[in-house]
Formats: sequence, C-alpha cells, structure tokens
Amino acid sequence: MNFNTLSDAHLKDFQAMVAPDRFSTGESILDLHAKDQSAHPARRPEAVVWPQTAGEVAAILKYANEHRIPVTGWGAGSSLEGNPIPVCRGLVLDFTRMNRILAIREEDFQVDLEPGVVYQDLNEKLRHTGLFFPPDPGARATLGGMIANNASGTRTVLYGSTRDYVMRLVVALASGELIELGTRASKSSSGYSLINLFVGSEGTLGIVVAATLRLVGFPAEYSAAVATFPSVAAAARTVYELKRSGLNPAALELLGPECIALMNREEKLDLDEAPTLFIEFHGPTTEQLAEGLEAAREICTGQGCTDFRPGLGRAERDRIFKARHGLGEMIQRNHPEHRILIMDVAVPITAYIEMLAAMQAEVKTHGLIHYTLSHAGNGNLHLNIAGRKDDPAEWDLVQKVSERLVLKAIALGGTATGEHGVGLGKRKYMPVQHGTSLAWMQRVKELFDPNGILNPGKIFPG
Amino acid sequence: MNFNTLSDAHLKDFQAMVAPDRFSTGESILDLHAKDQSAHPARRPEAVVWPQTAGEVAAILKYANEHRIPVTGWGAGSSLEGNPIPVCRGLVLDFTRMNRILAIREEDFQVDLEPGVVYQDLNEKLRHTGLFFPPDPGARATLGGMIANNASGTRTVLYGSTRDYVMRLVVALASGELIELGTRASKSSSGYSLINLFVGSEGTLGIVVAATLRLVGFPAEYSAAVATFPSVAAAARTVYELKRSGLNPAALELLGPECIALMNREEKLDLDEAPTLFIEFHGPTTEQLAEGLEAAREICTGQGCTDFRPGLGRAERDRIFKARHGLGEMIQRNHPEHRILIMDVAVPITAYIEMLAAMQAEVKTHGLIHYTLSHAGNGNLHLNIAGRKDDPAEWDLVQKVSERLVLKAIALGGTATGEHGVGLGKRKYMPVQHGTSLAWMQRVKELFDPNGILNPGKIFPG
Repeated sequence: MNFNTLSDAHLKDFQAMVAPDRFSTGESILDLHAKDQSAHPARRPEAVVWPQTAGEVAAILKYANEHRIPVTGWGAGSSLEGNPIPVCRGLVLDFTRMNRILAIREEDFQVDLEPGVVYQDLNEKLRHTGLFFPPDPGARATLGGMIANNASGTRTVLYGSTRDYVMRLVVALASGELIELGTRASKSSSGYSLINLFVGSEGTLGIVVAATLRLVGFPAEYSAAVATFPSVAAAARTVYELKRSGLNPAALELLGPECIALMNREEKLDLDEAPTLFIEFHGPTTEQLAEGLEAAREICTGQGCTDFRPGLGRAERDRIFKARHGLGEMIQRNHPEHRILIMDVAVPITAYIEMLAAMQAEVKTHGLIHYTLSHAGNGNLHLNIAGRKDDPAEWDLVQKVSERLVLKAIALGGTATGEHGVGLGKRKYMPVQHGTSLAWMQRVKELFDPNGILNPGKIFPG
Repeated sequence: MNFNTLSDAHLKDFQAMVAPDRFSTGESILDLHAKDQSAHPARRPEAVVWPQTAGEVAAILKYANEHRIPVTGWGAGSSLEGNPIPVCRGLVLDFTRMNRILAIREEDFQVDLEPGVVYQDLNEKLRHTGLFFPPDPGARATLGGMIANNASGTRTVLYGSTRDYVMRLVVALASGELIELGTRASKSSSGYSLINLFVGSEGTLGIVVAATLRLVGFPAEYSAAVATFPSVAAAARTVYELKRSGLNPAALELLGPECIALMNREEKLDLDEAPTLFIEFHGPTTEQLAEGLEAAREICTGQGCTDFRPGLGRAERDRIFKARHGLGEMIQRNHPEHRILIMDVAVPITAYIEMLAAMQAEVKTHGLIHYTLSHAGNGNLHLNIAGRKDDPAEWDLVQKVSERLVLKAIALGGTATGEHGVGLGKRKYMPVQHGTSLAWMQRVKELFDPNGILNPGKIFPG
C-alpha cells in the first residue's frame, strides 16, 4: 500500500474535526503511542486524536481513506503482540476520552458502552447489580481493545472469551460509514454474523465505536485451592486429568516455580516455589464447591501433588490473582537488560502435556531465562523467554525457539495465538495455520478496507 | 441472476461426477426435495444428487458455478422457513449419504463428522462417553442443516445455540475450492472469524462438508417441574421474574393451553390444560436442583401459579419433552384444511411480557386459530397461526398479523428469527432489522458466491 505522510493541511483538517485539546503532534504524546507491552520495536504515529463521538470517528476515517492515511485504534496500549503499534505511522485514534458507560440494562443482563471503558472499571460500576463481565486479560485493557483482540483470561475456561459476550456493535468503516451489527435478543438466526468478523479483527476491518455486552450473574460462592507439584510435567498431567474428569473449574492456571518466586518477592506471598496449579470453582453453595475441591484434590494427589491447600479465603484468593495478573509486567521489570518474547499458543487439551514438555525442553536445552504461565484449563500456554538486549545472537535464538514451538502447536491442531492476537509477531504463522482460507481473510479485508488504511501491517504476512 | 436450466449434457455430466445410484431426476424424488416443513409453496429442483465426499461436492459446485446452475444443500428437509426449497430450481445436494461420524475425540470433548449426521443419532452414539451435543431443534435435523441455520432449541437457554459448538469447518465454496476454518484449540485470536460467517448463512456462502463440534459433559442430575397459570400473561411475568432472579434453568418453555390440550390428546399426557411453564435444572447434585426448584416454586407462586409439580422423573420428563418437540408436526396434522404460519421472533427478556401480550391480543382480536409455544428463557416466541387453505383473505390476515408482530419484535430490539433462519419468509424484514449492514451482507455474498448459485432466493429481499 502507498500511504501519504501527513501534510500541514492534513494536520489542520484533522485538528478541525475535533477540539484543539484533542489533537496532538507533541513528541511525548507520539512516544506514548509508539509501543505496547510487547518487545516489538516502537514506531511513532504522526499525530494522535482523541475522538469523543462516533461521528468524529466516522469523519476522520472518511477523510483518512480519501487521503490514504493510516489509522490505528488505541485503547490502553496493553496488548502483547504489537497490535496497536502504528508501523506505517499516520494517525492514532486514542479512545480514552470515549469511555462512557451508556446504559446498564440490568434486567436484560446487558451493558451499552463506548470502547474506551476499562474492563475493571466496568466491573466496579456493575458491583451493586450482582452482574459482571467475565473476561479478564489482567492489564487495564479497554473493552474496545478486548473486542479487537478477542481477549480472554483466567476465567475463560468457564466463562468464555470476549467474543462470547459481544451482542451488538456499532462500527465505523474505512469509508466513513457507521454500521450497526447484532441484536439485543439472546439468540438470532437472522443473516450473516458480520459482528463476529469485527471481533478479533484487531482494528483492521473497522473501528468499534459502541458495544452492547452480555453480562452474567456473580457466582454465589467461590473457593480456590493452590496445589504444588514436584515437576512441571506432573502439573501438566494433572491439568489433563482435571479436564478429563468433567469438573468445571472457573480458573485452572499453571505456573512454573520461577513465576511463584517472582510473585512471592514482589507481592509478598508465601507460596511454595514449585510448579503450581491455581484451581478455582464457582457455584451456588459452599457444599458443592467443597465437593469439587475434594475431587480436584484426589486427582492432584494421584499425580504426585506435594501440597494441596483448599479453601483459600476471598482476600487470599484476590491477592494471588492480582499477583498472577501482574506477572507479565513483573517479568519485564525484573529483566531491564532483556527483551521478553511472549508466546501465546493454545492446543487441544489432549496435546497439552506434550506441548508443555516441548517448551520446557527447548528452554532448558538452551539455558534460556524463561517463565511458564498457562491458562491451562484452555490449553493456552504462555512462555515468556528473555534475550539480552546487547546480544543479538541470543535474541535470534529466542526467536528460533519460539518459532519451533509455535509451529509445533499448530501441528498439534492448535493456534499461534490463544488470546493476544496476531499483531506483528504472529503474522508469519498465518499461512501455515490457515492455509488457503488466509486468502479469503485478505479478500474480506479488501472488501471492508480497500485502501488498507486501517491498522496496516498487522495480521497479514508482509 | 440468470441461471441456466439443466440440459441433457449437464445432467449427464453431474451423473458422471457421482455413482449412477446417487443421481435422480425421478418425479417422486424431485417432489421429496421440493418443500420443507413450512407453509411456503413447493418448488421442485431439476435433479437431486447424493454426494459422498468433499471432493464430489467441490467438483459439483465448480461445474455448477461455471454453468450458472443453482445448487441448494439439503439435510433432512425439517426447516421451517423455506430455507432449502430450491426456488430457482437447479440441483439439490442431499447429504443423507454423507453421514459418517469421523472421530469421537472423547478426551478433547470434540467430534468430527459429516454434515448428514442427524443430531439425535450423534447423541445416541455419544451416550457411552458421558458427553453430548446440546442444541435440540426437535425434528430429526442434520448437523449440516443446524450449522447452516444456527439452530437451537429447548436447552439453548443454558447451553447456547449451534454456533457456540462449531469449532472447525471444511466448506466447499462456489468456486470449487475447499477451505478449512477454525481450530481444535478451545480458544483462538488468530485472524478473522470466517467460520462464523458460514454458521447461519443457510448454504448461501458455501456448503459445509465436514465439521468439528464441541461437546459437553452430561449433567450428573436433572430435575424438572410443570407449573400452570391462570393466564398466559401470568406465565409471561413468571418467565421474566425467573430470568431476573439469576436462576439458570436448562429449559424454560412456555406453552399455551391449546398446546397442552394437543399434547394430552396425541401423546396421552395428563397435564392441566392451562398456560404452562416447563422448567428444568441441570446440576451436580439432587440437593442443588431441589434448591433451584424451590426458588422457582416461590417465584411461580408469587405470580399466581395454580399448580406446581416439581420432581418429575426422567421418564415423565422425557415424555413431556418428546411431546413438546413433536408439537409443530402435531399442529400441522390436526389442521389439514389450514396452512400454518410459524412465527419465530426473539426479544430482550425485558420485552418478553409486552411481546407475548401483543401476540395474544392480535390472534384474539381476529379470532384466529393459534398455538403459543415459546423457548421463553431466551425470549424466543413462536406463534403458529392457522389460515384456511380455501380462504385467501384469511391467509392474508394471518400474514398481516405476523408482519405487525415481527416488526414489533424488531422495534423492541429483537430479531425476526431466533432460530429458524431467514429462508423465504423473513427476507422482507432484513432491511428494517439490519439497516445499512444488509448491504455489507450482500457484498460478502458477492465475494464468496459471485454468480449467486448457492441457494439463490434466500436471505436477501428480492
């Protein structure tokens, strides 16, 4: 694609479309919109705009489309695969000032909101209703970003991903047209599910300007346990057995001992520094949860679990999950001399043991600093691998290890990305994962964004 | 679209693509593929083919596309909106001989199958595994048809629609290309969700030749109750209160007294002939179910319930649901002089009481024979209205009543079709329901099927 750089005339026109205090070309502002939480290199946009209405977004897209100017949506910059880095420069639309909750439709279990709402803030606002929005990626992500990436988290094993909660979207297209998709009814068989094209499209097909999300009732009770194991392999076998048993945990997380050590140190926890599973159950009564935990204990013990601590209180559980959610950032902070590559594969649960073993073998063979953290119940595995910034050969090795492992996940029937999106880092795996259907994704892209102005350089291999 | 009628040369070519015993132009065969279970007029195809492999389907589509011949997929002919009626004639592909279960991946909670498998047969085959496929449209529908219509049923209130279970599809496109979509991993953020375009597309974008479906564990226990009410309005208020309470029934069905009378007569049940709710709970223990039923009883009583019978045994429950599933056919059989118009709207649950009241008012005002049957927990309402075949004015009235009610459902934030699909009967509502996004559906159709050979005449208004 040939894009235009922003001329003074373009800049003046964009500025006129919003208020002067919602437009910037300041150096520090451009820097703040040049990178996400991944190791991908920063790239500054040429200008940043903070839209406040759907109409502003539509007008900006229409103009940008006519003038061949790249436009990239921006939520919180918390993504992990370079998804919002404006690699072709142009304009960034920052949605942090378009963050109103428009209506809480409590009795329909729905909420209408703008894309800049942060999901933790939403759940805080919902607290009095007894309802919540389950997907929990951890970082303070915006709903717009979560919809764009089909984000998920620790609760996805029971509650599903963001896609499962998107009922209705208003989307601004590259042409400047605003279209409304979906329905407020709990089910529909009316026409093509265009709404599902936009969920997970990483802002490359259109930009979400409003959404209606489904909510669910807060569980009456919850209960959690920590189980420690003599080896990562034993913990992995336990994950498989727990899934096979048909128990329905609300969280089933696997952490390597190096993660536990970091959490202990940074969050003053007192956990055994061993391979660990966090297991949580949600349900209507404490008795039922106790039964679930007892069944889980038996399975853990059968796999050599060395310590099983059930019945964590709410406060202790919250501290552990807060630490778990903060792990990505802790790892970065503790390795200032390193770049951190973040893997995010997911495999069918029968392949989980094999996939995790392959990961362990690779990092041990090469003596790489690594952190194993997995939404295990979904067969979703993260492996954060550190490579010294001043050692290009090591970074090269880290990337080669990652590549072998991602290809293995795909060969096992899995996916190159369980929740972080394709962004920049997973583009090269798209042909092998999707085969000839990738060409159809490209055609859909050309249909909705013929000039390719929306978040260019993402998803599709160069 | 300009289509060609089948010449002798075309017929010979199609016959050569399959075995001679899997091709027919016989009158009775054409009649059998001319109509579904709806009141829409029959229209014969020109020939019927029974493919047995994905390759045969692909070759047939390629040829049909080159020769501008309409192709319509056919499962069991059980749909209710004219979806598989070959209104532009051409070729029907009957999938009843492509009905193998390819692999039961028990430990991944997945099954691979061909589109001709009937869902009840699948569940029968799965029985020994403790797993099942929840969506239950009632009639002996094929999975291919269910995927094409995003079918659902009585269990959808807890378990979701067919869409929620489709992990992976192999689809034959009009061009003759076979593409594979989706993944076996339980979650993915890799690229556009093309798979969701094909689910619910009614065979107008491509034809499913293989699928991987997600399965779930059979509930340890279930328990059901029948509650009768002095009025449909009281039953409707109860539905709303049950949903609002956050109880999670596995079925919540509302039936008018006329339905109960029919079920009593035809299935030798002994239910009170009054407005009735069937309520079912699934769960891990009988104690928990008893608590759910007790909470439901309190809500029912508060709305004037005249009789609440909890604790139905498995056998009695199965008889009632069998009768419920047979209702559509019973209604047809009991009114041989009438055409039956089947409404299928769904609304947000807060609009349920108003929608049901409007339906009752319309049919009572006009003295129309009617049957009220509703997947109430989803806000999904069916109203089957009879119009005498020899009275065009009455049929005209039935259609006008239906039109007013469908438009009301859409105005209430709902959908023209909760589960039956657009087919022929709901096409006229597409512009008002989808607005400008309908044009994008049309563009997607043109992208995947530029010559419009796939199930022409459906979904889009003429």
